[in-house]
Amino acid sequence: MMKLALQPLTREAFKPFGDVVETEGATHFPINNGTTTRFHDLAALQFSGSNAKPIVSIFRGQAFTLPLEITMMEHHPYGSQLFMPLSGHPYVVVVAPKGELQPQQIQAFLATGQQGVNYHSGVWHHPLISLEASSDFLIVDRAGEEANCIEQDLNQSILLEF
Amino acid sequence: MMKLALQPLTREAFKPFGDVVETEGATHFPINNGTTTRFHDLAALQFSGSNAKPIVSIFRGQAFTLPLEITMMEHHPYGSQLFMPLSGHPYVVVVAPKGELQPQQIQAFLATGQQGVNYHSGVWHHPLISLEASSDFLIVDRAGEEANCIEQDLNQSILLEF
Repeated sequence: MMKLALQPLTREAFKPFGDVVETEGATHFPINNGTTTRFHDLAALQFSGSNAKPIVSIFRGQAFTLPLEITMMEHHPYGSQLFMPLSGHPYVVVVAPKGELQPQQIQAFLATGQQGVNYHSGVWHHPLISLEASSDFLIVDRAGEEANCIEQDLNQSILLEF
Repeated sequence: MMKLALQPLTREAFKPFGDVVETEGATHFPINNGTTTRFHDLAALQFSGSNAKPIVSIFRGQAFTLPLEITMMEHHPYGSQLFMPLSGHPYVVVVAPKGELQPQQIQAFLATGQQGVNYHSGVWHHPLISLEASSDFLIVDRAGEEANCIEQDLNQSILLEF
């Protein structure tokens, strides 16, 4: 089975797939008479199609342990999908570029509990892989008329490991 | 000085002002082959005006202690503003109904570190009041051409206390 190791999650490495939502390195300025710092506009939200709009939800993901067999990926053709951890636990982000899904192009990142990710529209990703404990995430994604989740099985499984 | 005590934050009590973003009591269903629970569409996002769009930011608020003197309120005429706590600490939500600001209509709520709030457009609220420690919040609010923050000093201060 093909093996895939986790990389640290950085804005630069994740750029082909979307945004890393974190304070480090972000544009920021004081508001509220100096009592609050605003880290401003951290993700490109995308929503298209009929009656499309962004919505806010919470996902509660069960805890996984590595090594873990990856057998499928999914993408959302009509919108971005943002995950922001609320429970402070790390999680795994598995992605592949837009277009035809090619297993050898799959990459995996280890996100800290203080890093969110925003998958851009069309970017292949694995469903939520929380580590350590069942974890909640705030989600900003797209509602609309068209079905917006395309799943595809891999023609060969990938073993995800630290 | 007029004194104001904190109420527990509940969906019902907060309904005139906006949404409480929490899993408890929310519509939910399984996704990702049963490994994730989706608590679905928890807030009414609003954004109007020229070139209006929702944006995602992080606010880092300094810690306050009570009792605290409240001297002003603000509102956003062109959009809602959602706060979701990322640090797990409680915070205080001070609000008044849309329209002419009347100090005797101000209410204060104690939010847990697992409860977000979404102020609806036009609803008066106080800037961020984190308790216990400096705390980060994920924010979903509106960007656009028109200025979108109206501040107003109170004609009499209010003493906020537990």
